[in-house]
Amino acid sequence: MVNSVRRLLFGQPLPSSAVETERLTKPRAIGAFGLDALSSVAYGPDEILYVLLLAGSAGTALDLPVAMAIAALLAIVAFSYRQTIHAYPHGGGSYTVARENLGVTSGLVAAAALMVDYLTTVAVSVTAGIQALIAFIPQLDRYRVVAGVAAVALLVLVNLRGVREAGAAFIIPTYIFVGSLAAMLAIGTVRLATSGAPALLHSAPAPVTGLSIFLVLRAFAGGCTAMTGVEAIANGVPVFRKPEAQNAARTLVVLAIVLGVLFLGVAALGKAIGAVPSDQANVLSEIGQTFVPNSPLFYIVQVSAALVLLLAANTSFNGFPRLAAVMADDSWFPHQFTHRGMRLAYSNGIIVIGALAAALIIIFGGSTHALIPLFAVGVFLCFTLSQAGMVGHWLRTQERGWRWKMVVNGTGAVVTAMVTVVVLTTKFVGGAWIVLVLVPFLVLNFIAIHSHYSRAHRELQQSNIPHRARGPEHVLVPVKTMDRAAAAAIDYACSISTDVTAVYFATDAATADEFRARWREWASRVHIEALLSPYREVITPLTGLIDAYQASHHGKRVTVILPDIVTHHLWEEPLHNQTGLAIKLALLRKPNVIVTSVPIRLRG
Amino acid sequence: MVNSVRRLLFGQPLPSSAVETERLTKPRAIGAFGLDALSSVAYGPDEILYVLLLAGSAGTALDLPVAMAIAALLAIVAFSYRQTIHAYPHGGGSYTVARENLGVTSGLVAAAALMVDYLTTVAVSVTAGIQALIAFIPQLDRYRVVAGVAAVALLVLVNLRGVREAGAAFIIPTYIFVGSLAAMLAIGTVRLATSGAPALLHSAPAPVTGLSIFLVLRAFAGGCTAMTGVEAIANGVPVFRKPEAQNAARTLVVLAIVLGVLFLGVAALGKAIGAVPSDQANVLSEIGQTFVPNSPLFYIVQVSAALVLLLAANTSFNGFPRLAAVMADDSWFPHQFTHRGMRLAYSNGIIVIGALAAALIIIFGGSTHALIPLFAVGVFLCFTLSQAGMVGHWLRTQERGWRWKMVVNGTGAVVTAMVTVVVLTTKFVGGAWIVLVLVPFLVLNFIAIHSHYSRAHRELQQSNIPHRARGPEHVLVPVKTMDRAAAAAIDYACSISTDVTAVYFATDAATADEFRARWREWASRVHIEALLSPYREVITPLTGLIDAYQASHHGKRVTVILPDIVTHHLWEEPLHNQTGLAIKLALLRKPNVIVTSVPIRLRG
Repeated sequence: MVNSVRRLLFGQPLPSSAVETERLTKPRAIGAFGLDALSSVAYGPDEILYVLLLAGSAGTALDLPVAMAIAALLAIVAFSYRQTIHAYPHGGGSYTVARENLGVTSGLVAAAALMVDYLTTVAVSVTAGIQALIAFIPQLDRYRVVAGVAAVALLVLVNLRGVREAGAAFIIPTYIFVGSLAAMLAIGTVRLATSGAPALLHSAPAPVTGLSIFLVLRAFAGGCTAMTGVEAIANGVPVFRKPEAQNAARTLVVLAIVLGVLFLGVAALGKAIGAVPSDQANVLSEIGQTFVPNSPLFYIVQVSAALVLLLAANTSFNGFPRLAAVMADDSWFPHQFTHRGMRLAYSNGIIVIGALAAALIIIFGGSTHALIPLFAVGVFLCFTLSQAGMVGHWLRTQERGWRWKMVVNGTGAVVTAMVTVVVLTTKFVGGAWIVLVLVPFLVLNFIAIHSHYSRAHRELQQSNIPHRARGPEHVLVPVKTMDRAAAAAIDYACSISTDVTAVYFATDAATADEFRARWREWASRVHIEALLSPYREVITPLTGLIDAYQASHHGKRVTVILPDIVTHHLWEEPLHNQTGLAIKLALLRKPNVIVTSVPIRLRG
Repeated sequence: MVNSVRRLLFGQPLPSSAVETERLTKPRAIGAFGLDALSSVAYGPDEILYVLLLAGSAGTALDLPVAMAIAALLAIVAFSYRQTIHAYPHGGGSYTVARENLGVTSGLVAAAALMVDYLTTVAVSVTAGIQALIAFIPQLDRYRVVAGVAAVALLVLVNLRGVREAGAAFIIPTYIFVGSLAAMLAIGTVRLATSGAPALLHSAPAPVTGLSIFLVLRAFAGGCTAMTGVEAIANGVPVFRKPEAQNAARTLVVLAIVLGVLFLGVAALGKAIGAVPSDQANVLSEIGQTFVPNSPLFYIVQVSAALVLLLAANTSFNGFPRLAAVMADDSWFPHQFTHRGMRLAYSNGIIVIGALAAALIIIFGGSTHALIPLFAVGVFLCFTLSQAGMVGHWLRTQERGWRWKMVVNGTGAVVTAMVTVVVLTTKFVGGAWIVLVLVPFLVLNFIAIHSHYSRAHRELQQSNIPHRARGPEHVLVPVKTMDRAAAAAIDYACSISTDVTAVYFATDAATADEFRARWREWASRVHIEALLSPYREVITPLTGLIDAYQASHHGKRVTVILPDIVTHHLWEEPLHNQTGLAIKLALLRKPNVIVTSVPIRLRG
């Protein structure tokens, strides 16, 4: 039954050899890795305007220049990452590149920043998607948090089904979104060219602050959220069809061009109509209302935007588990993250990022804007470390054309470093400081985990071939009454050893004598030790008995066998085995003591 | 270390034989059992006035008559319980009396009502005590809930130290409270007699409702909360010094007289000065402010009242664990409640009532008034069942003077039954309904627990003398690598059986062959089974192996031995044993399979 449900939800299990055929074609890869980047068109331009509007019309005049600066930055980063993909065809995540070229610590910082980035991407994308849905279904507003958590749960399910299905499920809405948005932008541009500029939708609001460098930088930092997701392809090179690097690099270029065009198109048309984003309507929907009001195209753009935003979170569901697996392989992260599930997806990583993202959505009350400040810092920190790592790579390898390539990556590193500082300073109070706490915390954890695994590995290796045991095990069986439970425990004890002692705890000597006599009739061949325990205590005299035995037998191993009554219903469990549980807990960390429970099943 | 802390907190362990010398003298018994009853003087008169004031001066005119009715009821109940004590010298709790004379169901209803009563007593007394402290320390108001929970925790600690200490700790404040309050009431009475009535403190507020029978009954029901705790002595007879029944009965009479006098005194003086209780000052403090303003006596009364209220909860800490133990002895309650702790107190019962009371305080936000409606129903339900049971007792035994004794208990039963109905109807909406839900729920649980224990006992009894096992155990040892962990598991397996098979799971045949070859070098005498598991799954092939073995060996028992890495620090635990944990969970309810963990200790 459980298996049937599992198969229905997750599909048939896949053998390890199926990894090959599960690889992604380029169009599918856009679906799997490009959603995050593409969907940011729906909120990136808004984030710029939100800030610039504070300075009134003087501010909005700078909208297009800021958008162009971001597009230029996107070109630099994409060009820079193209080189990374070719240099690291086995997956050039920031972690790998930084670790190999800048040293372990930089690698760990990059990994920590990436993890924070993946996590916030899920939370931001899902809440932004719900926000977009709320524009259609205002009743959803009350259930914002619940809807967000449900969406995350759905993503976890889809991803547990495995990589290819995930790509397939998301490819159609992505292409519908890109296609319909491109059509709408084209129609808008043609109308502008033929009929001239329409009346402005809104007059710019009165400035509440003067225009300053800091304000422009804040707007720029806000718009930079549009660039998250660009590094996803570089991390995922091995999932592409062969030749992996070439296919991945081409996909990246296509993605960057499409993203850049759409981003600039939205910013330019928004500027032309005097769009002012609000909780009710974003720039995208104001463009639609102006050029294709109430047409099917308008609704297609809006619905697919909402859908793509929700699905953008999927990029992280591909990225995080894969990063966790790489980290776990190097023993910086718990080993269980290397296990692939029955559908070849890294189940543990998928479940963990899902749970953490759901927690983040609950903590921040399902608000996109509250989450945004956490968002961009991690991304640009990764960009910087990755590009700086590439500079080191070219210096080290000095392969053909390395000077030119180093200049490309060096430019990328310097620019993204500057952006990191800008984002951090302009959004520090708003929440970016959380990342500054979280990244070192994660790095310290990585180091602690790694050093533990190293020590454990060293210790466990000091192993001889298993030697033959010396004589039978010394087995103790605490008993309370001469019933089926005691009989089962004694039976098992006698089947694993010839050195079995039953132990009984009596509050006084008379009870002890009586029990001893009855025991000799009941189980004549098993030695009984009836101990006095005036304090009605079991643990102390039992551990005393074990200590005494071990002291006189060179610390020889002792096995304690306890009956464990397995009840028919779960609620009946606490009515039994309380003493056994206490004994188990007490002996848990006692050296050279093994505790075994013999289940006795009750029928009903 | 743990032991030292334990001894510091709970005192030296006491042997079972010390039960005798731990018995209570009469003065100590007042401390242990009388606090609940005596402390109600601080809120009982207030509860009457709160209701009567709704009808203005027409209402307050009935204050004294209502108080006298309650005093009369107290006399009836005390006289009635005196007979119970003599008839049941081994503890005449409502449960025992009702069960023996009215049948099992009535006994269970009485027990459930008593449990609810004990629980609400703790919550009400503690919150009322905190409320009294707030009058002195207004800053405490914010921490009302935290302070209440802390007080409960303190009571748990004191009670875990055992019965005698508990009585001793509480005896001094009780006597200070009784003494200082009596002195204050005497001074007040003398002043009234010599100087005549003082000017009224408050003129009665304008009536918000007419005077009705229902209102008077509500006031009466409110004042009846003063009677809770009277039954405590009857439940605790065996804790008294010999002759138990006589000592207990005398203590009860003394307690009832003191309580009656103080209660009437407070009500009468309150009436004379026109007291109006409020959140800032109760009747007690208004009497003090009138007759002994700002004197040391005033502060002594107030502080000891606050203290006694806090400590009144202790009555339940004596009663509940004892009732739970009696119920557990009869298998109506989980058996672990019969175990006395190292200091001869019923530790489990003490901890459970403490935890539940803390939960109640948290749920009701630390408000006494919100809790009061839950409070009185349980008490009077118990009174009724207990007295009705006594009527049955006299009818059955017909011992000397039974007719007269039956009339006494019969009167008690009829009167308390009427009060039960009054309390239930007047406070139903306010929260008394919760008791009506809780009592049947508890009774159903008692019955379910009892029938489970009966069935389990029957099944476990069908036991033969343990027979000699047939041949060596079949032992399976899943292994991942040839390290110290595997060596330890194999070593233990070989020491308990000669039929040991190591099991390895490989994703393909080549890995399986290679492992098999290396294994033969490493542990030549242990058979290795290298299974293919293309889905990287361990559980399914392992259970398959067990099923196949059992199918061909008449369901013979199988032992699975797992290495269990014990880390130096607790946080390192999740870095290991994940597969082992999954195997354990999967085999937990599989018949005839025993899972044993062999601990491998890491040094650091």
